[in-house]
Amino acid sequence: MFDDSTIVAIATANGIGSISIVRVSGKNALPIALKISKKTNLTPRYVTLSTLYSKDENPIDEGLLIYFKAPFSFTGEDIVEFQCHGGVAIANMILDEVIALGARIANPGEFSKRAFLNGKIDLSKAEAISKIIEARSEDAVKLLAKQLKGELSFFVNDIREDLLFMLAYTEVSIDYAEDDLPDDILEKIDVKLTKIKEKLSNTLEASKRREGMIEGFKIAIVGKPNVGKSSLLNKLLNFDRAIISDIAGTTRDTIEESVKIGTHIIKIVDTAGIRDETSDIIEKIGIEKSIEAIEQADIVVALFDNSKPCDSEDEKILSLLKENSNKQIIKVLNKTDLQNSFEKSKLNDFIELSTKQSINPLIEKIEKILDANTHSDEMTLISKRQIQSVELTLHHINEATFPLQTGELEFFAHHITEALHNISNITRPYDNDEMLDVMFGEFCLGK
Amino acid sequence: MFDDSTIVAIATANGIGSISIVRVSGKNALPIALKISKKTNLTPRYVTLSTLYSKDENPIDEGLLIYFKAPFSFTGEDIVEFQCHGGVAIANMILDEVIALGARIANPGEFSKRAFLNGKIDLSKAEAISKIIEARSEDAVKLLAKQLKGELSFFVNDIREDLLFMLAYTEVSIDYAEDDLPDDILEKIDVKLTKIKEKLSNTLEASKRREGMIEGFKIAIVGKPNVGKSSLLNKLLNFDRAIISDIAGTTRDTIEESVKIGTHIIKIVDTAGIRDETSDIIEKIGIEKSIEAIEQADIVVALFDNSKPCDSEDEKILSLLKENSNKQIIKVLNKTDLQNSFEKSKLNDFIELSTKQSINPLIEKIEKILDANTHSDEMTLISKRQIQSVELTLHHINEATFPLQTGELEFFAHHITEALHNISNITRPYDNDEMLDVMFGEFCLGK
Repeated sequence: MFDDSTIVAIATANGIGSISIVRVSGKNALPIALKISKKTNLTPRYVTLSTLYSKDENPIDEGLLIYFKAPFSFTGEDIVEFQCHGGVAIANMILDEVIALGARIANPGEFSKRAFLNGKIDLSKAEAISKIIEARSEDAVKLLAKQLKGELSFFVNDIREDLLFMLAYTEVSIDYAEDDLPDDILEKIDVKLTKIKEKLSNTLEASKRREGMIEGFKIAIVGKPNVGKSSLLNKLLNFDRAIISDIAGTTRDTIEESVKIGTHIIKIVDTAGIRDETSDIIEKIGIEKSIEAIEQADIVVALFDNSKPCDSEDEKILSLLKENSNKQIIKVLNKTDLQNSFEKSKLNDFIELSTKQSINPLIEKIEKILDANTHSDEMTLISKRQIQSVELTLHHINEATFPLQTGELEFFAHHITEALHNISNITRPYDNDEMLDVMFGEFCLGK
Repeated sequence: MFDDSTIVAIATANGIGSISIVRVSGKNALPIALKISKKTNLTPRYVTLSTLYSKDENPIDEGLLIYFKAPFSFTGEDIVEFQCHGGVAIANMILDEVIALGARIANPGEFSKRAFLNGKIDLSKAEAISKIIEARSEDAVKLLAKQLKGELSFFVNDIREDLLFMLAYTEVSIDYAEDDLPDDILEKIDVKLTKIKEKLSNTLEASKRREGMIEGFKIAIVGKPNVGKSSLLNKLLNFDRAIISDIAGTTRDTIEESVKIGTHIIKIVDTAGIRDETSDIIEKIGIEKSIEAIEQADIVVALFDNSKPCDSEDEKILSLLKENSNKQIIKVLNKTDLQNSFEKSKLNDFIELSTKQSINPLIEKIEKILDANTHSDEMTLISKRQIQSVELTLHHINEATFPLQTGELEFFAHHITEALHNISNITRPYDNDEMLDVMFGEFCLGK
């Protein structure tokens, strides 16, 4: 059942700032706002300066009020925004007043849910909104802003339309035999199917490559004990601390181990392990740790010691890298300030540096790899949910190919319907009426 | 020199929230906003939904724009507010775009400073704004909201007007002997002076009593080792942790030791010392610690052990309390779950409880004291600066009384002028022209 209660929430981040926003949505938003402001009316979309009063008639604050009249608001309902002075106490007091006047605290995501239910945004936009709030790099923001503008919605709609037409044609063809259908229709469908497959595969591949754009790309630092992992970690973490201070005040415990390189956020996997690298236990379980770290990483930085000959531990690392050639791998010959003893022929395509001096060559290499991964206009999915939906869509489209060729149109229709459901889940779960609309609208079967 | 550069800042708190605001003030605010939104115009005070673009033409976000046309804005200059999706990255990107278009990052308080320089707010309001952001209790917010509405400005203006008239009359009387002056004027001035003195003294006294309203009232817990200080502290800190979770994300290191009682915030002085009460060092320096703690506190909670006879250490605490009878003192006989051995006649007016069972009687007592301290409509000064200004004003008014009686009007005028300067410092530093306006406006000496 649709819940028509009036909801309220503090929309700005919790902490010390100049301005806080308390947002109320629902049919009582306007009467509540008028009560608190002692105004007789609010002009939609016009900013009104007002004293805000508590129920005991004391002024709480001087603030701005903005009334968004339904349906021209984020949620599609009446919304009033109170822009009050910042800080924690004052926004909470306004919240309390609004609640005392009959609203209730919004559940997480409830504003967006109402926006979705009222047809103001689709699920892909809702996801972009939720992710953009947590985005930590410009790349992530740009990616999400595109989705917010509807890039993924258009992408899904294109595929959906194609599938709907296929389905409509085949349903007709099943029910009415071959009457009135153009001869080459099945061929055309086959071509369309191949194109959709390609589109979806490319999107999946690009999305997986770019998975780190929002949360941060994961980098594993591996190498035998005392090769300089800890020293590299410290240099990396101090490389640019801007991003870290930017997010002071959030409670994400991953922050400490994140760093910004160029426009990218990278997260260093298992920093605790790296920090403890000289402890006995870690030395013993070094290789197991490395395997684990590599598994989680997008990029693997493998360190080798220039001052010592390649030994069995190095060889183990090298074979580990071979087994993981699907990852982005950067081999680094460290300690170039010392006399060379390592057989460079064992590595090919490697960077030489001394973590004691400068790690710039490595930074540049990482940035280059991530730039290549991210700086393109490919369609990108931004959540596991979206990826899963596309994977299932692709699965059913693959399954549909054979029955199409053998003329088993019921099977074909079944898989296309499933594909339609799955692709639709990305934006707005599929409604059967829609297909009927297409079918009956285009085909005029009732003639 | 007045700086006419266009300034920009993120106005909302740093962290994860649904909405962030980037605020731009200055003559380039509008052109910058038009560039970022690709709009041709913005209607003042009207909320416009727009895509926000980076200089490379990529969408950054979908946001709201509000243009406040000078002088009808907070700063008195053109202001544009960008309301964008929350989080850290996106607001920073908009900030960067605004800066790239010629604005510079605002200094702390610079928006308010411009508001003051442009005559939009006086210093007392500016102070209320800065304090309200950090306010942590409803009492504090209500107090500051009154000042924000101008309560202190009116108070200052009243006194200022009285002083200005006194000064005008006496200046005239000095320059023109007794011509045209009503006979009883000096008597009337004397009556006015007495009233002002009373007003200022009351305000000072009330303000000092309520100093803890904004930052929190300081409570010291004293008593000999093992009397239960640490146990009381833990009970107090767990009494209502709402306020603590409310402020998660701020970096104030005092938070841990704050607690909300009723509508009040209390801060426990020297919790580290209390926590360590069983360590040897602390036992040795117990009394010195107590003296220090009492000195800083608004309320002193002194604990005595019901299960043991009153000993020399207890006596020391009791005499310490006597020496500090200007503080609010609450004597607590702890460990009532054990057999009584303490001579109750040694204490009078005390609370009995067992910190192991319930500290509610103490909580109620603290709340009662703080309610009495704070719940009244007396004029309250909210900063050391305001208190100092009133103290200096009062000093000069006291100094002015004698010369008025002896007819040494030059001395009188000197002190009234000083008083005028000092009271004016609270809102808007005194301008000599103002007195001249009064003098020439009211007296028509050029006749």
